[in-house]
Amino acid sequence: MTPLKVGVAGLGTVGAGVVRLLQENGALLAERCSRAIELTAVSARDRSRDRGIDLSNVLWFDDAIALAAEADCDVVVELIGGSDGIARDLTEAAFACGRHVVTANKALMAEHGVDLAVAAEKAGVTLAYEAAVAGGIPIIKGLREGLAANRIANVSGILNGTCNYILSEMRDSGRDFAEVLAEAQAHGYAEADPSFDVDGVDAAHKLAILAAIAFNTRVAFSSVHVEGIRHVSALDIAFAEELGYRIKLLGLANERPDGIELKVHPCMIPSGAAIAAVEGVFNAVVAQGDFVDQVMMVGRGAGAGPTASAVVADLIDIVRGDPAPALGAPASDLRSLPVVPMDRRHGAYYLRLMVMDQPGVIADIAAAMRDNAISVESLLQHGRSESEAVPVVITTHETDESAMMRALETIAAIDAVLEPPRLIRIEPLVH
Amino acid sequence: MTPLKVGVAGLGTVGAGVVRLLQENGALLAERCSRAIELTAVSARDRSRDRGIDLSNVLWFDDAIALAAEADCDVVVELIGGSDGIARDLTEAAFACGRHVVTANKALMAEHGVDLAVAAEKAGVTLAYEAAVAGGIPIIKGLREGLAANRIANVSGILNGTCNYILSEMRDSGRDFAEVLAEAQAHGYAEADPSFDVDGVDAAHKLAILAAIAFNTRVAFSSVHVEGIRHVSALDIAFAEELGYRIKLLGLANERPDGIELKVHPCMIPSGAAIAAVEGVFNAVVAQGDFVDQVMMVGRGAGAGPTASAVVADLIDIVRGDPAPALGAPASDLRSLPVVPMDRRHGAYYLRLMVMDQPGVIADIAAAMRDNAISVESLLQHGRSESEAVPVVITTHETDESAMMRALETIAAIDAVLEPPRLIRIEPLVH
Repeated sequence: MTPLKVGVAGLGTVGAGVVRLLQENGALLAERCSRAIELTAVSARDRSRDRGIDLSNVLWFDDAIALAAEADCDVVVELIGGSDGIARDLTEAAFACGRHVVTANKALMAEHGVDLAVAAEKAGVTLAYEAAVAGGIPIIKGLREGLAANRIANVSGILNGTCNYILSEMRDSGRDFAEVLAEAQAHGYAEADPSFDVDGVDAAHKLAILAAIAFNTRVAFSSVHVEGIRHVSALDIAFAEELGYRIKLLGLANERPDGIELKVHPCMIPSGAAIAAVEGVFNAVVAQGDFVDQVMMVGRGAGAGPTASAVVADLIDIVRGDPAPALGAPASDLRSLPVVPMDRRHGAYYLRLMVMDQPGVIADIAAAMRDNAISVESLLQHGRSESEAVPVVITTHETDESAMMRALETIAAIDAVLEPPRLIRIEPLVH
Repeated sequence: MTPLKVGVAGLGTVGAGVVRLLQENGALLAERCSRAIELTAVSARDRSRDRGIDLSNVLWFDDAIALAAEADCDVVVELIGGSDGIARDLTEAAFACGRHVVTANKALMAEHGVDLAVAAEKAGVTLAYEAAVAGGIPIIKGLREGLAANRIANVSGILNGTCNYILSEMRDSGRDFAEVLAEAQAHGYAEADPSFDVDGVDAAHKLAILAAIAFNTRVAFSSVHVEGIRHVSALDIAFAEELGYRIKLLGLANERPDGIELKVHPCMIPSGAAIAAVEGVFNAVVAQGDFVDQVMMVGRGAGAGPTASAVVADLIDIVRGDPAPALGAPASDLRSLPVVPMDRRHGAYYLRLMVMDQPGVIADIAAAMRDNAISVESLLQHGRSESEAVPVVITTHETDESAMMRALETIAAIDAVLEPPRLIRIEPLVH
């Protein structure tokens, strides 16, 4: 049988990893697929750079779109990135020529995934994107096929390795965000411009993709509530430990009678939960199905090797004759569920205030909670000082976010409350 | 399009769960598959029993083999169990009639999986068995498709929920094995005859299946080294905690230059490892691939809902046109890797001795270790007593099992060592 011919557009770390995997494990892949996978074309800007891979029998294209349209290949692997521009253009060009596309591009899939899936279905080709979510973890396949018998109630997880690394390091060392970020940048674990990661955008892209598959719905990426980890302090991490929690940046998606919730924000989760033990650059996704109950998958969310593993898994599916619809159901039939506004979140809260330690402060804070029908679960005050602000930490029972926000406004206006209150949502992660 | 017609042989807890899932989530499945899945026939012994499911439009067969051969169905779901007898006969009967088979039968797959896969390939039908390993966790699909780009170095995990429940309860309550087992039996978490579970046979079945897929090899089930948890004591669990370990029954399979290791035995694993946090009836599987590094999947390993989820996932694959080979590579091409004998295991050990606290004992024990070139990592002795035996706990650095066994023989023969030594292997789980 003729090999499956593959063109790779983009030869950064991941592209070079894909080429290396196809070369090193070529015999193994041919055995598992009963057909070889052959790299026939590549495209990148800098032809002279040493990438540590052998490209001697491969046709070079300076123009990625030309590769998608003209190369001798059955599949185009898009590893350029970005939600629009070349990545999108070359995907559409490949479809127009009847070629399958494998992409690791979360921004592209989060912004245009449904439209591209519709285009792929019309063209009778495959759009595959396992590498776009949680790197090497086969979560797209897991949700779309492995758990496909279930109505999914929620899917959530640690979707950004940079943030998880920073939070893990902060906990281990007691240092604050800025210091750990600088170190992560020096080690190459964080980008020079870290905002995509630390402000939660990257996690939100992945969450939007997971939600589309889990709930068979179109997701407008702009409707995801996004908060990053810049405001998480060493003090909050220490209090979390004391309260039996660990702070993680989670993406959370769930279906309720009034729509879907789509949220990325720092969470306090019980320190005994299995996902709390997922530290460093690892990612983890938890899905809850009506028959299967909870399933969790853990692995490396980024890096050349894990991402190449996912890209080539998609190629293997294509060689074998991939039959699953890209988004778990025909893309043109997806629902359009409304997104529940954030103020309708229902859950528990952690609140840290810096207050002047003077008579009546606690009473004022407690009154604000009572007036908004919020039930306090615990109140911690450490240390006393007549001259400096001291932290007061409150955890609440489950309440509505709107009530919590009203209470917060009142509390922030109290004279003895000196800094903006810090609020972190508590997620039990067992529903 | 006509529905995919399904016959279910065996209406125990799992069979009833499959029927209930097909009925409750029928519309959802049809949406995701673009084709309905229809239950047309069932078979079980007792026709009068109330199973809480509607069988009014379903043809009843008293004889499961007749169902496999004669029912109006495309797929036969085998939920009878047992490695031979009816389960095997009906599988072969279904293949002979050109019907796909979905099974949850780990004994059947561990003993005859390769032969059945060859038969299915010859007949041009699918043999699917996601439910046979780790219940609702899509680990067969994960290994065979999700991680298919990787050379797998090892796959291991918590494969028996009953054992994990018992060990978790022992740790939580400080009680001993027999007491917790009796309670588990009273609650229905353990069988009246628990030996299949607590002696490690069930885990070994699952491990043999995982190893076949991971290493593309035939596995003779009888070559799996199997130890259960009957000898794990409350004392060892307490020492494990003190040393920073947790005791789990693991199945462990790995490839080495001289063959594959296939082992089921109690292990001490670092208490900070994510898999150590997997407690109660949950299962977990960790696989290590050359590109993806470690991936872990966690979920419920048994029960009507999770097992039905896996069975119906296989049906969905069949409706969509399942293209992956049953064992991850064509069954007739599998290798026949030798199994490495247990005495060639290389690793660290925990050893607990009950000794009379008298001069020279520790020196004799230490000499036995030294004479076998075993390097001691730590030695703990708690309590002193002139009249009673006291526990002495030793952990070693990595050594060969054969050396450890020789040392053990010498140590067991020391007069002041009063009970048979207890040995538990230490597994770092990060390779």
